[in-house]
Amino acid sequence: METKKTRLESDSMGDIEVESSRYWGAQTQRSLQYFSIGHDKFPREMIRALGIVKKTSAITNAELGLLEESKKNLIVKAATEVIEGLLDDHFPLSIWQTGSGTQTNMNVNEVIANRANEMFGSPLGSKSPIHPNDDVNKGQSSNDVFPTVMHIAAAESIYNNLIPNLKLLESTLKEKSNQFQDIIKIGRTHLQDATPITLGQEFSGYAKQISYSLDRLGSALPSLYRLALGGTAVGTGLNTHPNFSVKVANVIAKETGIPFVTAPNKFEALAANDSLVEISGVLKTIAASLMKIANDVRWLSSGPRSGIGEITIPENEPGSSIMPGKVNPTQSEALTMVCAQVMGNDVAVTIGGASGNFELNVFKPLIIFNVLNSIRLLSDSCHSFAKHCVVGIKPNLEKIKTNLENSLMLVTALNPHIGYDKAAKIAKLAYTENLSLKEAGVKLGFLSAEEYDLWVDPKKMI
Amino acid sequence: METKKTRLESDSMGDIEVESSRYWGAQTQRSLQYFSIGHDKFPREMIRALGIVKKTSAITNAELGLLEESKKNLIVKAATEVIEGLLDDHFPLSIWQTGSGTQTNMNVNEVIANRANEMFGSPLGSKSPIHPNDDVNKGQSSNDVFPTVMHIAAAESIYNNLIPNLKLLESTLKEKSNQFQDIIKIGRTHLQDATPITLGQEFSGYAKQISYSLDRLGSALPSLYRLALGGTAVGTGLNTHPNFSVKVANVIAKETGIPFVTAPNKFEALAANDSLVEISGVLKTIAASLMKIANDVRWLSSGPRSGIGEITIPENEPGSSIMPGKVNPTQSEALTMVCAQVMGNDVAVTIGGASGNFELNVFKPLIIFNVLNSIRLLSDSCHSFAKHCVVGIKPNLEKIKTNLENSLMLVTALNPHIGYDKAAKIAKLAYTENLSLKEAGVKLGFLSAEEYDLWVDPKKMI
Amino acid sequence: METKKTRLESDSMGDIEVESSRYWGAQTQRSLQYFSIGHDKFPREMIRALGIVKKTSAITNAELGLLEESKKNLIVKAATEVIEGLLDDHFPLSIWQTGSGTQTNMNVNEVIANRANEMFGSPLGSKSPIHPNDDVNKGQSSNDVFPTVMHIAAAESIYNNLIPNLKLLESTLKEKSNQFQDIIKIGRTHLQDATPITLGQEFSGYAKQISYSLDRLGSALPSLYRLALGGTAVGTGLNTHPNFSVKVANVIAKETGIPFVTAPNKFEALAANDSLVEISGVLKTIAASLMKIANDVRWLSSGPRSGIGEITIPENEPGSSIMPGKVNPTQSEALTMVCAQVMGNDVAVTIGGASGNFELNVFKPLIIFNVLNSIRLLSDSCHSFAKHCVVGIKPNLEKIKTNLENSLMLVTALNPHIGYDKAAKIAKLAYTENLSLKEAGVKLGFLSAEEYDLWVDPKKMI
Amino acid sequence: METKKTRLESDSMGDIEVESSRYWGAQTQRSLQYFSIGHDKFPREMIRALGIVKKTSAITNAELGLLEESKKNLIVKAATEVIEGLLDDHFPLSIWQTGSGTQTNMNVNEVIANRANEMFGSPLGSKSPIHPNDDVNKGQSSNDVFPTVMHIAAAESIYNNLIPNLKLLESTLKEKSNQFQDIIKIGRTHLQDATPITLGQEFSGYAKQISYSLDRLGSALPSLYRLALGGTAVGTGLNTHPNFSVKVANVIAKETGIPFVTAPNKFEALAANDSLVEISGVLKTIAASLMKIANDVRWLSSGPRSGIGEITIPENEPGSSIMPGKVNPTQSEALTMVCAQVMGNDVAVTIGGASGNFELNVFKPLIIFNVLNSIRLLSDSCHSFAKHCVVGIKPNLEKIKTNLENSLMLVTALNPHIGYDKAAKIAKLAYTENLSLKEAGVKLGFLSAEEYDLWVDPKKMI
Repeated sequence: METKKTRLESDSMGDIEVESSRYWGAQTQRSLQYFSIGHDKFPREMIRALGIVKKTSAITNAELGLLEESKKNLIVKAATEVIEGLLDDHFPLSIWQTGSGTQTNMNVNEVIANRANEMFGSPLGSKSPIHPNDDVNKGQSSNDVFPTVMHIAAAESIYNNLIPNLKLLESTLKEKSNQFQDIIKIGRTHLQDATPITLGQEFSGYAKQISYSLDRLGSALPSLYRLALGGTAVGTGLNTHPNFSVKVANVIAKETGIPFVTAPNKFEALAANDSLVEISGVLKTIAASLMKIANDVRWLSSGPRSGIGEITIPENEPGSSIMPGKVNPTQSEALTMVCAQVMGNDVAVTIGGASGNFELNVFKPLIIFNVLNSIRLLSDSCHSFAKHCVVGIKPNLEKIKTNLENSLMLVTALNPHIGYDKAAKIAKLAYTENLSLKEAGVKLGFLSAEEYDLWVDPKKMI
Repeated sequence: METKKTRLESDSMGDIEVESSRYWGAQTQRSLQYFSIGHDKFPREMIRALGIVKKTSAITNAELGLLEESKKNLIVKAATEVIEGLLDDHFPLSIWQTGSGTQTNMNVNEVIANRANEMFGSPLGSKSPIHPNDDVNKGQSSNDVFPTVMHIAAAESIYNNLIPNLKLLESTLKEKSNQFQDIIKIGRTHLQDATPITLGQEFSGYAKQISYSLDRLGSALPSLYRLALGGTAVGTGLNTHPNFSVKVANVIAKETGIPFVTAPNKFEALAANDSLVEISGVLKTIAASLMKIANDVRWLSSGPRSGIGEITIPENEPGSSIMPGKVNPTQSEALTMVCAQVMGNDVAVTIGGASGNFELNVFKPLIIFNVLNSIRLLSDSCHSFAKHCVVGIKPNLEKIKTNLENSLMLVTALNPHIGYDKAAKIAKLAYTENLSLKEAGVKLGFLSAEEYDLWVDPKKMI
Repeated sequence: METKKTRLESDSMGDIEVESSRYWGAQTQRSLQYFSIGHDKFPREMIRALGIVKKTSAITNAELGLLEESKKNLIVKAATEVIEGLLDDHFPLSIWQTGSGTQTNMNVNEVIANRANEMFGSPLGSKSPIHPNDDVNKGQSSNDVFPTVMHIAAAESIYNNLIPNLKLLESTLKEKSNQFQDIIKIGRTHLQDATPITLGQEFSGYAKQISYSLDRLGSALPSLYRLALGGTAVGTGLNTHPNFSVKVANVIAKETGIPFVTAPNKFEALAANDSLVEISGVLKTIAASLMKIANDVRWLSSGPRSGIGEITIPENEPGSSIMPGKVNPTQSEALTMVCAQVMGNDVAVTIGGASGNFELNVFKPLIIFNVLNSIRLLSDSCHSFAKHCVVGIKPNLEKIKTNLENSLMLVTALNPHIGYDKAAKIAKLAYTENLSLKEAGVKLGFLSAEEYDLWVDPKKMI
Repeated sequence: METKKTRLESDSMGDIEVESSRYWGAQTQRSLQYFSIGHDKFPREMIRALGIVKKTSAITNAELGLLEESKKNLIVKAATEVIEGLLDDHFPLSIWQTGSGTQTNMNVNEVIANRANEMFGSPLGSKSPIHPNDDVNKGQSSNDVFPTVMHIAAAESIYNNLIPNLKLLESTLKEKSNQFQDIIKIGRTHLQDATPITLGQEFSGYAKQISYSLDRLGSALPSLYRLALGGTAVGTGLNTHPNFSVKVANVIAKETGIPFVTAPNKFEALAANDSLVEISGVLKTIAASLMKIANDVRWLSSGPRSGIGEITIPENEPGSSIMPGKVNPTQSEALTMVCAQVMGNDVAVTIGGASGNFELNVFKPLIIFNVLNSIRLLSDSCHSFAKHCVVGIKPNLEKIKTNLENSLMLVTALNPHIGYDKAAKIAKLAYTENLSLKEAGVKLGFLSAEEYDLWVDPKKMI
């Protein structure tokens, strides 16, 4: 068997072997050894945000005269590769590590240093000219870097992924609402037949739920704009330039196009992750909205014969090989499962968020892992649900008409013409003898079929 | 305005006024003053269990020669009144107090001492001949009394309330399953029509879920039998007789008829409340089962015209004044709301259970409050659902028949007779032209109406 | 035994006996009979809001010419008694009832009708001149009344109770932060000694968490301003005047002083309760903040000898009878238990919020019960924690000083003077031989005691 | 750019291109296209269990004379490769798919058919001699296969992974408890100094929590032994041999060494996944236990100077580069984060478990994904915590001694010798003047230093 080539990397605890092809250093390697828990790793968004913090910190330190231009350039080049995803394979650490994310902060410090030194022409592990701590982590601490990265990753994901997909779903639902605005159908409360409504009105409610979801995100996003960077180890800003925090937040805002600012109170920003608990609360609210919509869609399309069957959904995969019309509402199923997951994730985030002590919350990897997971799941499933289900929803006009005409609730329209008592008798006869209202009315001699058609007009009831 | 009469009670912090008509003492009064949070108080089951611990501890201490017979008798008399519910008005404290339940333990000590002294002829507040700490709390600490009381209250509630009501629901469902065993109906998977099943089979699944609920309780109950009493303040049993723990557990077992034993490890028994977290996990599992059953009942009874409508449920209250047959599934609604509450309570219990430190978990009032709440809600709602809904469920034979005959899934029964290809063609025609399978088959000339009736027999498909 | 006097009340199902002293009618009585589940009832805030809706609806209907002035006046008088809490004993129904809250809406209709008729001089049960449905519920449906009541009750509770108590806690924490601004102490990350911080900075973080809590409420409150009233049964506004919804929202806004508006989409407002899910998400975020603060307080006050002991908290109740200084952090314990409950309540609310179908969510009583419970628990416990704990916190200056001076982290201040290597050697010697840094430095001959005092100045590190 | 080679696969919806190197077929390919949601896939344990069901079903069908020996052999060979993990790359589907897991069942059917046909010499996609539906899925339905696979995967993971790792942690804790049995230290309740305890007693409580965790698993495992296989689509067993269910459960039991049996009620087994909700409830109970232990370990090791510091934990990675003794409790942090995740996962499972309708629960992928995730996380983190933390815990004897001697609670030992009043005076003086009890006693002239040492013996207090 071939032996993998290794090199020596070192930290304050001494030397350790690292596979030659990897840019990470000693501290990353130790973490790998001690934290072999589960399969979860930080996603792309986090690694990108780590790169952004390192790039913008180098720029800021250089502006403040604390980092030589040549070093800055090297760090920026390597950090840009991190941002662009070229070095993702060099971030092997588990979510389930130190609760401050220190090991992942050291991972990016080591990768950028090694890659920068390689570009410069130095061997990996040389820590020269770029030192992972002294240069890449300059004026920073894991304790302020990591919460900053969490905010950047969450905000970018919401901007780039969740908001566009919610908007897609919103506009798809609105379009359906418009298409369906003249289709009158029976309403249902307590799962029981109620007075009429249009299918368009029903879908307008769904669209509005998504509009409000977007509003809720909009209200909570500013909490994420506050960045901890500049607080260093305990929030006092020890070992960093007094202007660093404000400046670096500006640079990050420019880099990302998101209006990040420095957090006015760094003690709160390190010791608590309440802003992410808040966002998670919004995400589960969105999940509650989506679960309602997805459930309505699958119940409305239930059947084909012995269900409600008022709409049809696209047939994306085989239902039954012999039975036509059996279209399983698989997109609804995927979406409702996602919603349940987001609700569970929210509980994990809340517990983690409540569990900080003194100057640091050490449930940070848990918190951001779940928030990013919820964002991604909601984004992807909104997209899938809009594209593979909602857009193809069609009304089953015949079933809608039958259901509406069968409805005993329409009897209320007869009150002004024949009086409440006779109307109630018609409804009762219809129910007990399983007749239509028209049939019952005619049978009782209270009205003619023509009068019924004239008087009972669901259009006036919506 | 009339002034309430008060007397002075005292503790190590000095004197404090207590309303004359109340048996509680200084520590209860202080807690009232400092913990005015919410409206929740400990329920009857807890007060009863507090009385049981005080009565059985007095008996045990007397047996061990540590408490004079005359004192024991006084304590037993007063504690018996607590057990029987005669003194419930004298337990005014909030759930949201000290996390060890110390204040409620002092409450019962004070009430029993004052009531015993009153029976003896001493004035309230005299602490003589019965002293709340030295006599009523003798050889005990809040730290072992309270978890003992929690186990007794939970176990008794499960025995006396939850198990009987689950059995009632189970037997009611079984009875329905038997009644419905020959009613063939369409099955539904993914909310879509599927192959046939009997209504009795459907209900047998519900009954089985409740049988398993009872099994789950049975498996978890032994965890509650382990009593902390005898561990005193930190689990070492300091200041109590070495035989106290085993003896008192025996007396409690006799008093309650439940096989309580002394916990083999008192450190675990004080520092953790894992047994109640476990029970809460079972309670939410039962809630998940009940939610499924309650949802099925309301969907099966949806309609009356434009829903599934295969069963009818009792009409306990007015649905619509004009529309007959609109029976809102209110019992299902109450039950599903209860289930959601039990799931929420479980999260509160889990967080509390995970939050102990060192020798004591100080989320005890929260934990037992939620567990008892879940037990009571499940008990009452199972009873209500069984008595006011399930027992009165009737099959809507006409709708069941229509749905079954409409079903395109029955076409699979034709395969052996006319082959898969022709069968599939029949199904397709039936679906697209909205015909019955029989009509489609005859129209296509693949079979006669008689042959169809002979070959397609749902009874053979269940 | 004395028999209670009863009278007959009637609804569409017939007559039923009601205790003579009660104002409720037939539908309330039926609900009492069929929903004997748990002990939870709607709190004062809900009954008040029910009164507000009935009063303002009567005013609006009269303005629209739909209700005679004399009837309006009677309804307003009776509803005012409901608002003011004079009739609370006449609202006996369980939370665990129909999921639309219909029975509670009928309860208020019946109580107001009976009370109004009594004031007019008619017998109870006469339904004349005021009819519970035709007059009190005029132009309304339970399906729009109940969500409106939920929003009013939640918004008023937040305004009148939660916000003032959060502000009290915020200002108390700020005051402490100011008092403590010059007290330098050791920081702690990962529970391990870290670089210095002031006690004032630590408390400024807590105060900021509460400021943000208030901001979060402020962002979410507008969702509650949207009222469903005017949507009637399914959101279409059938049977109500087209101007009713806008007008009544204005009247409610004036009545409450809260800027309520009519919901722009009534289908969303009936079918979903997302706004309350959102608010619940904010409440649990606040709970997460409070749990962190309460935990810090109890850990900082741990001891008195063998804990951290950097602060003392007020001694409100006896700790140990013999051991002075043992002050149990009971206010922190009550508060952390409340936080766990709020987190559990949030899960119940989310499940309920996600479980609507078609035109109506039928988990409404569950949702508002938990939201109001969380608001009340947070309000009361913030008040209690501020008044009975935070305000009396005092620094333990001696312990703070000892801890700070002992800290090995101060060695970093020596780097510029004697270099990193010598500083590290001092720290190592101090740790292994359990010396102070000063002692170790002097022992190693790297500096004099005077130089140490000059160079190591924690004030420069904060 | 190179074009990937593809072949055509087909199902009832027609042809679709599949990458040539992959064994999956048309239905898998369609699912890939329609369910691009998140990154989560089924783990190894699930794929193994899918292979087991297909292998044992083929064996059983052959025994029942329903499958030719040659076909059986081919299927068994291919399924064995699935079991052994040789074909994991051919299972690309998302968790977030159809809620019945149908697409993953088709995935394994297609992979086994193609691989079997390849071994036979037929081209991929030929469906001959082995047909994915007719042969590999013979007598099965996704609706009974998938819940069976869920039970097998969960039970095997618990047996092979969780139980051994819990036992490792239990034995490591017991060993420490034995090592520490004579180390007397101060106890702590409410975070406040309390009466003494041994460090061994404290660790015995932790060990007992894990013993009970194992008991809890043992009680719940039998629920997982019940297999749905044989119920086919709706629980009636349509299209499968009446003896299939019992026989195949036996074969699975033999294959796995776990006492699986056929579920006595197949309707329950398909429509509900309560057994997994139950197991998840046990997993979160274990998480609550572990969180308590992990928290105690990190608080006991807090410091090094200004914390509790009674134990030291292994230094696995650099804490601070300059400050010796700063050992961050990273293993505790990873473990507590895992516990929070398991609690969140449990909520997702509960919601999914409660959400079944009629004959099928369609939250199956969500449920098993979370259960397996929780099992894996708990297993790995117990292993890591035992191996990288607990085993290396050492008592800090000096700190333990200082804390104990400082404790004012020891004063209770003087009561029998000098009386309660004098003892209390000693404690008060010691507290207010910050003296040791011995110093205070001597200063007050109540005893000599020798008498103090003689009378105050913490060993007698444990």
